[in-house]
Amino acid sequence: MPSPLSLDAVLAQVDAGLDDSLERLLALLRIKSISTDPAFAQDCRRAAEWLAGELNGLGFSASARPTPGHPVVVAHGPEQAGPHVLFYAHYDVQPVDPLALWDTDPFDPQIREKAGRKIITARGASDDKGQMLTFIEACRAWKTVTGALPVRISMMLEGEEESGGKNLPPFMREHAAELQADIALVCDTDMWDHTTPSITTMLRGLVADEVEITAADKDLHSGMFGNAARNPNQVLADIIASLRAPDGSVALPGFYDDVAEISPEVKAQWQGLGFDEQHFLGAVGLSRPAGEQGRSVLEMLWARPTCEINGMIGGYTGDGFKTVIPAKASAKISFRLVSGMDPDRIRAAFRAHVQAMLPPDCTVKFTPHGGSPAITVPADGEFLARALKGLSDEWGKPAVITGSGGSIPVASDFKAILGLDTLLIGFAHVDDQIHSPNEKYDLESFHRGIRSWVRVLAALAE
Amino acid sequence: MPSPLSLDAVLAQVDAGLDDSLERLLALLRIKSISTDPAFAQDCRRAAEWLAGELNGLGFSASARPTPGHPVVVAHGPEQAGPHVLFYAHYDVQPVDPLALWDTDPFDPQIREKAGRKIITARGASDDKGQMLTFIEACRAWKTVTGALPVRISMMLEGEEESGGKNLPPFMREHAAELQADIALVCDTDMWDHTTPSITTMLRGLVADEVEITAADKDLHSGMFGNAARNPNQVLADIIASLRAPDGSVALPGFYDDVAEISPEVKAQWQGLGFDEQHFLGAVGLSRPAGEQGRSVLEMLWARPTCEINGMIGGYTGDGFKTVIPAKASAKISFRLVSGMDPDRIRAAFRAHVQAMLPPDCTVKFTPHGGSPAITVPADGEFLARALKGLSDEWGKPAVITGSGGSIPVASDFKAILGLDTLLIGFAHVDDQIHSPNEKYDLESFHRGIRSWVRVLAALAE
Repeated sequence: MPSPLSLDAVLAQVDAGLDDSLERLLALLRIKSISTDPAFAQDCRRAAEWLAGELNGLGFSASARPTPGHPVVVAHGPEQAGPHVLFYAHYDVQPVDPLALWDTDPFDPQIREKAGRKIITARGASDDKGQMLTFIEACRAWKTVTGALPVRISMMLEGEEESGGKNLPPFMREHAAELQADIALVCDTDMWDHTTPSITTMLRGLVADEVEITAADKDLHSGMFGNAARNPNQVLADIIASLRAPDGSVALPGFYDDVAEISPEVKAQWQGLGFDEQHFLGAVGLSRPAGEQGRSVLEMLWARPTCEINGMIGGYTGDGFKTVIPAKASAKISFRLVSGMDPDRIRAAFRAHVQAMLPPDCTVKFTPHGGSPAITVPADGEFLARALKGLSDEWGKPAVITGSGGSIPVASDFKAILGLDTLLIGFAHVDDQIHSPNEKYDLESFHRGIRSWVRVLAALAE
Repeated sequence: MPSPLSLDAVLAQVDAGLDDSLERLLALLRIKSISTDPAFAQDCRRAAEWLAGELNGLGFSASARPTPGHPVVVAHGPEQAGPHVLFYAHYDVQPVDPLALWDTDPFDPQIREKAGRKIITARGASDDKGQMLTFIEACRAWKTVTGALPVRISMMLEGEEESGGKNLPPFMREHAAELQADIALVCDTDMWDHTTPSITTMLRGLVADEVEITAADKDLHSGMFGNAARNPNQVLADIIASLRAPDGSVALPGFYDDVAEISPEVKAQWQGLGFDEQHFLGAVGLSRPAGEQGRSVLEMLWARPTCEINGMIGGYTGDGFKTVIPAKASAKISFRLVSGMDPDRIRAAFRAHVQAMLPPDCTVKFTPHGGSPAITVPADGEFLARALKGLSDEWGKPAVITGSGGSIPVASDFKAILGLDTLLIGFAHVDDQIHSPNEKYDLESFHRGIRSWVRVLAALAE
């Protein structure tokens, strides 16, 4: 158990070493580790090896382990008394398109000031390289000051979180014995607001599917064939339109069968958060929630499932006009799930619905892109209480418990494969523009994120 | 008036000169005159200058005239007695994507055998370079044998037919006096079948519009925002789905207000053509007509308007998956019109319908891509009768009168601006895959197309 004296010294070391910590973050951000595009496979490997090198330098036994996809970095700190934590983050990033909308090169990170806040701009600055390094730099500060880590720490840093992550569960099953710990820590979530830290205990699940509709066996001239030939763009649009009812609910048959209403206690807790719907929507140029009428935005995001059309394409989409009836049209469609919903059942229901809507002469091809159930972390655990204390101490106000509309499949895998609960602790902000042009991470998120982990590790060691 | 003797000699010259004619066609096909893509502007200019050079060599006074877009080639043969014809064709071609589906380079034309027929493969082989050269090579044969043309001939060869053609009507208005003639001839249509020549007297009109829906002011993460944020892919799909009723009709309000039923006489004439619906659809991998139930395929194509989604795109469409809610989604949508429908009214009705369907927080931007009314050529004209005779003589069976589902805006412009009727005579086939990968033109279409024009010009001179 570290002494209060050493805690203060470690926090001082975080402050003194911030510039060096930033240099390391910028170096990692320069690596184009876009996992979904095979053209960047070498960059993903470089990022993994960079991390393994840094961790070995901190006294971990670390290596980039091969998978059928991108490597998984596994690192083990020295054995010692007290709880054993398994830290998870991901070193891969989203694609950068549309590139034209970036103010600066997404892989030439900049530190600049915007709206009175210092920010770090780059793809991955927030999601998840910046967040990942808050933990690693916290370990570095402990090691520098005390020569040791306050608790036993293992890490698993993956490279396919943004591209379905299908190789991680088999990897975890294969190395289940090696990955045993008492609790998992994940740094991939937001703070509640700029001054209030939070731990996320509800996460939506995800089912992602690609659907490709084929009609004629070649592209056709719309003058020659228009009206007589089935147009797959029209067929696909009809299918997509059928997925949402006019009241904003998802219209897939049986979609809400396993969805429970949230308890009055949880509803009351969420109301106490003082969430400003108009501000949340207004920040991205919107004013009215699009989902089920009569429900709050927080409910829509944390406690209700959704269906989103993440991409669709068919026919001629270049400059000018081409009077073509394409042979094919396709869409990338995802469902966010809440507690109780079975990803396999939802995928099957979706595919059955599409099949049932197919008009004559059309065929459909489905390509799965991953699926995971929603998870809920028990609200009464000892580790949760300690982590909340560490966060509250750093930020000078009580940390809150929140949900999240996002999906972190690894949290369900920790439970299902390793039997571990997960504490989701992150320092990102809703305006970080993750997955979008001009992604950023607040310098304060980075700095106080490191300090927060220093305190959380101390609290876990007590 | 040419003598029967000279007609035979000119036809013999066509046969003897076929290899040279083909060499010229291949040279033109190698020029990448894709008009809709600004990257190929120089190629369009090269094609225009190539044509002007060839025509000057045949005794025409020809030049590539500048427009705000690609040049228009105007050529005048010597003044002489008899009717004055204005020949029209276009030297520009469609884009080639998806390039991967071509068996050979679209701009490296090949002559090969397929299914027992000799074919010329290249983008533009049929539409419209091959068709255009049938007329020019017929002129060459007349000139070679008799030293003159059988009638007075002017030509107008444009370079923007595949990209909206918005610069041609002003050009025609500006040069209306110079372009005066007695009848317009257009070579951009099909034969009825491989042995039956035809003249097309009904053409559908076209309204092309691009619609872009914007919701949030940036791309969003579907975990963070999914359910609460409006998804423009969904909005666009809802709009597209609303354009077709379950019975296959176009569901735009008022769309059929000005559409008349075809007369019993026309219906009977079309039935006499012996059109094989199953063969027509089967040739492109389809079996059931998609349009209004209870109408024949010929009716759907020639006498009924349609709405086609020629392209749509929104969100992430690359490899893998990206859980994004895009800021924008867009579609290229066209309407084919029949006699009586006003292009401006249809465009306005479409845009009003889209506006009325827009949910809160969404904006729409429209970009017009051209419009023209349908046209009908009088069935009892003297020029039509002579041209039918010329075609019937060449093919040894009566030429037929047909409609077409396609749109040739210049035909309506000839009527509106120059007061000219148009004879639409072409030698293409429905399986030419125009606008698609592996476009081809039958060698027989080219050879006997030239012979047909030799005879039609003789018949017009009588």
